[in-house]
Amino acid sequence: MTIVSPDVDVSGLEAAVGADRVLRDPDSLARYSHDDAEWAPWETPLAVVLARTTEEVAATVRWAAASGVRVVPRGAGTGLSGAANAVADSVVLSLELMDAVLEVDVDERYAVVQPGVVNDALRATVARHGLWYPPDPASSAISTIGGNVATNAGGICCVKYGVTRDYVLGMTVVLADGSVVELGRRTAKGVAGYDLVGLMVGSEGTLGVVTSVTLKLLPLAGRDERAVIGYFPSLVAAGDAVAAVSRAGIVPAALEIVDRTCLRAVDEWMHLGLPDDVDTLLLARVDERGAAGDELAAHVADIFAAAGGTDVERATDPVEIDRLFQARRLAYPALERLGPVLTEDVCVPRGAVPEMLRRIQATAAAHDVTIANIAHAGDGNLHPLIIAPEGDAAAKDRAEAAFSAIVDDCLALGGTVTGEHGVGLLKLPGLRQELGQRVLDLHRSVKDALDPAGTLNPGKAF
Amino acid sequence: MTIVSPDVDVSGLEAAVGADRVLRDPDSLARYSHDDAEWAPWETPLAVVLARTTEEVAATVRWAAASGVRVVPRGAGTGLSGAANAVADSVVLSLELMDAVLEVDVDERYAVVQPGVVNDALRATVARHGLWYPPDPASSAISTIGGNVATNAGGICCVKYGVTRDYVLGMTVVLADGSVVELGRRTAKGVAGYDLVGLMVGSEGTLGVVTSVTLKLLPLAGRDERAVIGYFPSLVAAGDAVAAVSRAGIVPAALEIVDRTCLRAVDEWMHLGLPDDVDTLLLARVDERGAAGDELAAHVADIFAAAGGTDVERATDPVEIDRLFQARRLAYPALERLGPVLTEDVCVPRGAVPEMLRRIQATAAAHDVTIANIAHAGDGNLHPLIIAPEGDAAAKDRAEAAFSAIVDDCLALGGTVTGEHGVGLLKLPGLRQELGQRVLDLHRSVKDALDPAGTLNPGKAF
Repeated sequence: MTIVSPDVDVSGLEAAVGADRVLRDPDSLARYSHDDAEWAPWETPLAVVLARTTEEVAATVRWAAASGVRVVPRGAGTGLSGAANAVADSVVLSLELMDAVLEVDVDERYAVVQPGVVNDALRATVARHGLWYPPDPASSAISTIGGNVATNAGGICCVKYGVTRDYVLGMTVVLADGSVVELGRRTAKGVAGYDLVGLMVGSEGTLGVVTSVTLKLLPLAGRDERAVIGYFPSLVAAGDAVAAVSRAGIVPAALEIVDRTCLRAVDEWMHLGLPDDVDTLLLARVDERGAAGDELAAHVADIFAAAGGTDVERATDPVEIDRLFQARRLAYPALERLGPVLTEDVCVPRGAVPEMLRRIQATAAAHDVTIANIAHAGDGNLHPLIIAPEGDAAAKDRAEAAFSAIVDDCLALGGTVTGEHGVGLLKLPGLRQELGQRVLDLHRSVKDALDPAGTLNPGKAF
Repeated sequence: MTIVSPDVDVSGLEAAVGADRVLRDPDSLARYSHDDAEWAPWETPLAVVLARTTEEVAATVRWAAASGVRVVPRGAGTGLSGAANAVADSVVLSLELMDAVLEVDVDERYAVVQPGVVNDALRATVARHGLWYPPDPASSAISTIGGNVATNAGGICCVKYGVTRDYVLGMTVVLADGSVVELGRRTAKGVAGYDLVGLMVGSEGTLGVVTSVTLKLLPLAGRDERAVIGYFPSLVAAGDAVAAVSRAGIVPAALEIVDRTCLRAVDEWMHLGLPDDVDTLLLARVDERGAAGDELAAHVADIFAAAGGTDVERATDPVEIDRLFQARRLAYPALERLGPVLTEDVCVPRGAVPEMLRRIQATAAAHDVTIANIAHAGDGNLHPLIIAPEGDAAAKDRAEAAFSAIVDDCLALGGTVTGEHGVGLLKLPGLRQELGQRVLDLHRSVKDALDPAGTLNPGKAF
């Protein structure tokens, strides 16, 4: 047993939670040292705790608070902003083994789950009870509910159905002093006290460690899904179609952009036989029931065509819908094959989507970088994906300059620096620009009130 | 000019905001000394400020902070929990004159409004732009958006469309030191920093004074309203029908109970010719489009009939829907004619509605008080209305004992002490039971972080 840091004796941690809960081998320390935001800085943690119970989480936090060690909570490590990257003198507290769905209440339509439950696994479990958990981040097959809660994750259907925070009714939280509290409620409504549940959601583990979550669910039935897709001659033309859908008073269940770079990458990988001459794909889903839904899908198709869309197709069969959305689903992994991807997450007013896309293209040209675009366009939430060839330091510098330029443009257009991925470490400079000093001071005062010693994930989120 | 309190020289306030903004005559002080919760304690304020601008609000708070005076923000004073009741050494800061709709953005679907805008006035204004602001507290004709935000107000359509917090994107807030900050965003999504907007909503003016609000809106079109009503032989039978609707996976746009006492009071007042032999009225609204909505309304009607409902009627004509909902709309004012009403606001799991109604009836009998019931039954949010004859001190004591018994029963059934009216002063004892000491400590630490001197509405909300 080697002591990783000469200053901290981790044996106390092993005594507190059991030696079998603590990983200290170099491979594990490396594996848990950062999330999927490799562009953000990280340190090697002193140890990794694989907690199985709320009590083990509390014991870890108590030991850390007493030892002057930091705690970095972590779900599946699929975050894209560095919120789960280890900091100096920290232990990484993984919740991945706490993966049980504790309760599904069909009549009240809620589930109580541990934080390590994978989003898709929750979705599958509640579907067996005729229920639906809407938030669907692209990472749903691999990301955990705890991570979704920590980042207030969004997703494709959020344009109509809202984000993670809209579904969190209550939670069990281990506070910075190791005490355990229940926050929130299980009733449909409630205004008892401050919204501490909402405060915890999206706080990236800086205010408490969530060890169970009560999630509101919707009935699974009652929606008839239909897809509408169209190809557009340019990103900006697709952006215009997005703005036209919004202006028509339509709230689609999904409205996604996949640009030429993504389409090419997917086609080269999967040989889908996508048309050669197309530039940008726009995908919509509407889910109103019956004839009204059919009419709405037809209306969306008409808007696509009027905005210059070609090969406009509609589908109602689930397999066919899935095929139409395939390019969207495969875009990110297809791009990752081309090199390290620096993922942007700006969100602008819907009407500013065409202008923001125009500026992103100008930024790519100005900085000589490849930028692919996928976007939750109906929310104005864009994911420019900046690709830098492996091992090319100059390209990496150019990518980072482009990243900053995109943040600046987003703020100039009245947007926010992060739509759904969170601040973590990557968006700290942008956040400072967006919020200003007095609002940052407010964040600091809330953080100091709940975690005066700075035990929980310091330096993240604000 | 008489100095109300010998210890505080209010002339500094007059200098800060202008003497014409400050009311000090006894009639005004009396009129602004409490909201609609006359059962809660109040003091006579030192003065009333009728602010017209953010700067006047800030000047009031700065003067108060420097003078050791408390600030009690107030909208229209229609609150039912005493959150706007004046405390010792306070000025009441009325936002009622700040009643402008500053901006309606049709494409982005948001409005920026001052806090004194009346809910129905906002609704009418945005409707002219084809937009809809869903939260519809029963007080919508008289309550302000600022008050709705301070209490996180609910309403009738919230069972499907959510509460005030779900529609607040951003706000301008005067903090306890008189500084002014912008919180939140105007984009559809955003996770930049802690959810301080959500924290402010429902905080009853204890963390800041909101001087403008950016509200998310929905398209006005796209819904086809239909009403379904039925009469039930007992409150509990109607409660069973509510539970059956929920179990069928139906999310109605309204699901309201009006009991026999309310029906009688409305009929005696308005001579609607309601049937003599009916006990409880259950009203539903569904708003899915087209044939799917018709089918859903038929399904609800079938459930009503199967649960023992009689005279089940459906309506699609807006005038007819309005007529069917008339008894619900008039219930509260009709009851107020019978004597001072102590309004309860418990919220229980939907499935516990029949049992909670059973216990409320038992409480009425045990304490020899009249309790009428209206309820947002689809949310499990019940409003037992306890009526005590004017000037009968013993009856008032019995009413207060019944109030406490209802709170106890609600908590025993897994409910929360306030579904939508807020804690104010009336629900402080119940809140302490519900949250426990450690969570109350958390509230205190948040309050101390944002308002260390306790300037803003001390003693309220938690």
